Amino acid sequence: MAVKSTNITPVEHRIAKRDRWAVNRHRGGVIWFTGLSGSGKTTLAFALEQTLFAQRYNAYVLDGDNVRHGLSADLGFSPLERAENIRRIGEVAALFADAGVIVLTAFISPYHADRRRARDACGDAFHEIFLSADLDTCEGRDPRGLYSRARRGEIPEFTGISAPYEIPEDPELIVDTGRHTISDCLEQLVAYTERAFGFESLAIGKSE
Amino acid sequence: MAVKSTNITPVEHRIAKRDRWAVNRHRGGVIWFTGLSGSGKTTLAFALEQTLFAQRYNAYVLDGDNVRHGLSADLGFSPLERAENIRRIGEVAALFADAGVIVLTAFISPYHADRRRARDACGDAFHEIFLSADLDTCEGRDPRGLYSRARRGEIPEFTGISAPYEIPEDPELIVDTGRHTISDCLEQLVAYTERAFGFESLAIGKSE
Repeated sequence: MAVKSTNITPVEHRIAKRDRWAVNRHRGGVIWFTGLSGSGKTTLAFALEQTLFAQRYNAYVLDGDNVRHGLSADLGFSPLERAENIRRIGEVAALFADAGVIVLTAFISPYHADRRRARDACGDAFHEIFLSADLDTCEGRDPRGLYSRARRGEIPEFTGISAPYEIPEDPELIVDTGRHTISDCLEQLVAYTERAFGFESLAIGKSE
Repeated sequence: MAVKSTNITPVEHRIAKRDRWAVNRHRGGVIWFTGLSGSGKTTLAFALEQTLFAQRYNAYVLDGDNVRHGLSADLGFSPLERAENIRRIGEVAALFADAGVIVLTAFISPYHADRRRARDACGDAFHEIFLSADLDTCEGRDPRGLYSRARRGEIPEFTGISAPYEIPEDPELIVDTGRHTISDCLEQLVAYTERAFGFESLAIGKSE
């Protein structure tokens, strides 16, 4: 790649999203997973990221691991701090979407108001995916023993036990991770992503 | 792109950075511009983004426009809030770098401590570019009239006038935007970026 930029006249504007999409051959956007602890958010986010990567999509997972130790390292787990954590994730997701990336967020995000704010930050690019496994199913899995600890009162305000989960009223997609295998859920997600973000979606005259 | 993902066994790990780099044919990382108001950070960030985009790099600018109205909309301009703003930008830059993007940040970021913290967040991916136009030059340009307002006392703690700018001690690159034309500065930046992030850099046995 040689320097081809002599005598340019710099202009202070961003690259148009559609130009990024055309190069990437897919839209940027946000796949916002929401659901109880144990509903499969992290598992499916990473599985979807890997599948998309293999198909040459630019995809990236935001989860507790890379957000809570960095961007939100200053935040605890009070209701206000949890809301601020989700607010920041929504704003960062909007930046990734603007950059042409498909960002997958894996956070319980139990409240309408917080998800609504994330949607507002991201605009049309926001796709809310409700992983609808119910409490019995999720508590039965309890892969990290969190429900047991919550039942013993060791974790305050644990979603589903001592704090509410507000079921999404109008998500873009519901995936029943209580009834379907992980492979089946992943297939649904890949099909949805291709439809919503894939190359053929670029021809549709949606607004940016 | 058909579904090719039946019978997968999901694994909860991220895609390795090197795998992203191989597909993108360049490294991800952070080009952290620092310099006085009027030193050319925004102009050069957008010009570099456009040049890189034309050469099929994934590049994205973070600046006051897309950060201060979103992620940092809750922050004012007190010293503590400015430090927190730069901290968040450093953490978001680290996420973009991890996602394989070359992120260009255009913020005065006048303090060693704040830049050091951003470097720590980003690790090896961090490249500090000092735009070294001096105060007289920048104040002479004053494209938005900010220096005039600062001299009249209308903007408190304005870098270079009523607040210090701590000159980088060991930046990866110094570009003298006071002596060189924008085109010449851009050429230096493109050459640096190709050397540090380009396809040929992938063969070098640097750590991730």
